[in-house]
Amino acid sequence: MKILLIGGSGTIGKAIVNELSARHEIIIAGRTSGDVKVDITDKESIKKMYQTVGNIDAVIISSGKVHFGRLEEMTDDLYQTGLQNKLMGQVNVVLEGIKYLNNKGSFTLTSGILNREPIELGSSAAMVNGALDGFVKHAAIELPKELRINIISPTVITEALGSYAPFFRGFKPVLAADAAMAYSKSVEGLQTGQIFIVG
Amino acid sequence: MKILLIGGSGTIGKAIVNELSARHEIIIAGRTSGDVKVDITDKESIKKMYQTVGNIDAVIISSGKVHFGRLEEMTDDLYQTGLQNKLMGQVNVVLEGIKYLNNKGSFTLTSGILNREPIELGSSAAMVNGALDGFVKHAAIELPKELRINIISPTVITEALGSYAPFFRGFKPVLAADAAMAYSKSVEGLQTGQIFIVG
Repeated sequence: MKILLIGGSGTIGKAIVNELSARHEIIIAGRTSGDVKVDITDKESIKKMYQTVGNIDAVIISSGKVHFGRLEEMTDDLYQTGLQNKLMGQVNVVLEGIKYLNNKGSFTLTSGILNREPIELGSSAAMVNGALDGFVKHAAIELPKELRINIISPTVITEALGSYAPFFRGFKPVLAADAAMAYSKSVEGLQTGQIFIVG
Repeated sequence: MKILLIGGSGTIGKAIVNELSARHEIIIAGRTSGDVKVDITDKESIKKMYQTVGNIDAVIISSGKVHFGRLEEMTDDLYQTGLQNKLMGQVNVVLEGIKYLNNKGSFTLTSGILNREPIELGSSAAMVNGALDGFVKHAAIELPKELRINIISPTVITEALGSYAPFFRGFKPVLAADAAMAYSKSVEGLQTGQIFIVG
């Protein structure tokens, strides 16, 4: 398969490359590095990415930014970071990607644990993860061309604990390599409309 | 209790008034009717509403607009309707309402079934309902003043089937009066961070 991976330089992204590159051709897209540059908050940039890459069999997104802050200090503007980047960034990659995916191709998005188990400062993550889980559940029933879509919802990643540990006390972390397995299941299996919980 | 109900003129809103008005003082806020006018997409309008109403014991929102359309015809702009109205409208009512709610007061928001069971044209509803469910789950752990927050997620309402029936074949509807019970449970009980599924 020819697989477009947006966010290939992150902790999970690198593990996805490790998991899939022996069996498939991986094209990495990133904001500042990768085979092709993309800013997922910019629809024109998404279009250009697809025009450069051409037809593909799978799109994986393991990228997305939200603002972390105390609920009482959150504002409409601070929520917009998550809504425009992690939420609509991924949704726009799907909407634009429909025409570039080969029949029976797949989208694999990324949400996370924080809408299921909230932590301090995480209201925007909870909001955006819930939105993505709902969107994917829906999109699976309306996608054309027998396309599939799933979303991976991992808990905190062991390799990221250095910076995140204080916020995730008591959360059993998972290795990035284990999270990468879920992406493989989504891309290489036949399921659709699933929220694959990791951890 | 003094309860502010935003969206008191809708099918569910009227049932909430029926359920709660014998025991509590209800102030109805609406875009075009009610005791006080409010446009939940406008933060200044939300502020004015609270300034007019003053301190309260509970806020209920049974209002929120999303765009219904085929996935392939949806655009970033069409998703903004739901994100700005049903999602951030309700979230901004919470953020601004924190200072007007008396200690131990409660917020009760409204999502809906479509992120759990998707229907044709409903991708924006699925996205926004998921976002709201996630936000509420989070907000419960960070709200100050011992404030509570829950969300009601009803299936299709019997009284609304006239216009919605073709989209909800096979969905067992619930009476608005039964949905109103869930709002009573949220306002008059002590639970927090709950998604009350109705139907």
